[in-house]
Amino acid sequence: MPELRKDYITPTWVVIATERAKRPKDFKPETEEAGDPAKCPFCYGNEHMTPSEVLAYRKAGSKKDEQDWWVRVIPNKFPALKIEGEVDHRVSQLHNRMNGVGAHEVVIETPEHFEHMGTLEASQIAETVAAYQARYLDLAKDTRFKYIQIFKNHGRKAGASLAHPHSQIIATPMIPRKIMEEITFARTYYQQTGGTCIYCDIIELELEKKERIIYQNDAFVAIAPYASRFPFEVWILPLYHEPYFERISPQDKGLLADNMSHVLRSYNEVLGNPPYNFYIHTSPNTPHEHHSFHWHIEITPHLTNVAGFERGTGFYINPVPPEDAASALRDGKKK
Amino acid sequence: MPELRKDYITPTWVVIATERAKRPKDFKPETEEAGDPAKCPFCYGNEHMTPSEVLAYRKAGSKKDEQDWWVRVIPNKFPALKIEGEVDHRVSQLHNRMNGVGAHEVVIETPEHFEHMGTLEASQIAETVAAYQARYLDLAKDTRFKYIQIFKNHGRKAGASLAHPHSQIIATPMIPRKIMEEITFARTYYQQTGGTCIYCDIIELELEKKERIIYQNDAFVAIAPYASRFPFEVWILPLYHEPYFERISPQDKGLLADNMSHVLRSYNEVLGNPPYNFYIHTSPNTPHEHHSFHWHIEITPHLTNVAGFERGTGFYINPVPPEDAASALRDGKKK
Repeated sequence: MPELRKDYITPTWVVIATERAKRPKDFKPETEEAGDPAKCPFCYGNEHMTPSEVLAYRKAGSKKDEQDWWVRVIPNKFPALKIEGEVDHRVSQLHNRMNGVGAHEVVIETPEHFEHMGTLEASQIAETVAAYQARYLDLAKDTRFKYIQIFKNHGRKAGASLAHPHSQIIATPMIPRKIMEEITFARTYYQQTGGTCIYCDIIELELEKKERIIYQNDAFVAIAPYASRFPFEVWILPLYHEPYFERISPQDKGLLADNMSHVLRSYNEVLGNPPYNFYIHTSPNTPHEHHSFHWHIEITPHLTNVAGFERGTGFYINPVPPEDAASALRDGKKK
Repeated sequence: MPELRKDYITPTWVVIATERAKRPKDFKPETEEAGDPAKCPFCYGNEHMTPSEVLAYRKAGSKKDEQDWWVRVIPNKFPALKIEGEVDHRVSQLHNRMNGVGAHEVVIETPEHFEHMGTLEASQIAETVAAYQARYLDLAKDTRFKYIQIFKNHGRKAGASLAHPHSQIIATPMIPRKIMEEITFARTYYQQTGGTCIYCDIIELELEKKERIIYQNDAFVAIAPYASRFPFEVWILPLYHEPYFERISPQDKGLLADNMSHVLRSYNEVLGNPPYNFYIHTSPNTPHEHHSFHWHIEITPHLTNVAGFERGTGFYINPVPPEDAASALRDGKKK
């Protein structure tokens, strides 16, 4: 019998489709062309092909916009939102629009064209996490930006137009609906329970149940959420309550990278380098202190197609029970 | 400058990405294998390969589950939800689940394996619309089903696992969040305005503005919505207020098919048979009369990838302004 499960927080329902159940080996991601490093704007020697860097971790004595960096951040050449101008919001009858003010940056995670987060050392991922934090703190000074979305597209099917490992940061002039939704439900729960964080309670419940835990270290836990929308969906949460990603300590950056590395290496081993997205959900960049939220990362592979039923209803159909996904990713070996 | 636009009704924002602007010819859908009719369970002579039909429009004297039909409806062989049993809903701490009770049917739209709604005659589409209505009315008698979602996946990328033209119907034991959201906002608008339908107001506004109108006949209008989430998204709405799809008159079934045919022929001509979904949004199957809702069809092609920014925020990035999409689809010729 299929099972319908509701997300812990939002009114999102998932069909765990037992009649269509799949094992890891049933998913065969297409092999993708990695492209030619000589023509890759993110490779050493091609720094002139990108806009000038806004941040780089580079060897002592090396020059801006030249090689010898290990993480490099640049403005996106084709930005979804543009940095210039004041926010101009107009409503005319049922037409509600704003000019596209924002920021759009690219974080090049390594000079190694043929690597990715599923093969890189955790120490290199920690450098990328450090760049996320540094750019976040700088962008957050701009009060036009109400939310700063850090995310990654890995693989063409997940939206990556270049194969060289990179993440992106988009700052938006309003709080996006998915963030607003999580924050609103977390606040309601906080008020109803007299001061409890729903994410802290999720962690406690899942650590007690054990069957959806993938990996835990001293600061973070990776779980397959109870109502996983996508096969092999993973959430990485700080074990201790913290609403703001950007307040991460130096030590925890290493532990976050360790946790991300475990999950993404498992993806690579168990699912054969699948396309995926991850995105950080953190508190908005507004003066109000969001004490009831709990920042986290959601990682969602692209192994099935989102079709008319999903688009029409907002339900998801997932042929892999999250308990099976957690078991496979915990072991980290091809089944 | 990119522009941010909000949906007429829900808090969904879209980036109309002028820096990444695309023309119809920039989208090249992959050519898909149509498969072998001899092995197709939806072709004449293969009726034994499917579960027994629940409805068929067939020639006088022909037999059930044999050939000589022109539209045939069958239970899905691999249903997302199953028809047997009572709804069993349990909540334990933060785990909220229901058994997967529902219905899942397939509407085979024509015996012609190599046709599709972008090439079929409108009269044949009208027969499919008649089958939608007939199956809706039958399923609606079952009070376990709170919502009945009629939808279509066309093309592999849009989730179709078989090439032979078909639609699907899934009945669910709760009202899905996207429906609930539209109904709630429509009701609020109705209350705030003292009894006006927001969809009627959208139609009036867009008919006045003209630039997003694609096609209009005596009963329906096709528009490119102001905040189109996807390139070439189209909504087809009844011109006159009606909350319930299943109350469509015999004459209007023909006019709906005429409108759908215009849009889907334009897709075929302008975009080269792109993958797409459509889904009907109608009032829930509950005793309460939903007088403030206005049923409609949403049609969304799959021309771009939904990536980390979209999954993380709920924003959409659309590189085709809906005014350009409407212009191209109105003309219906390859640009």
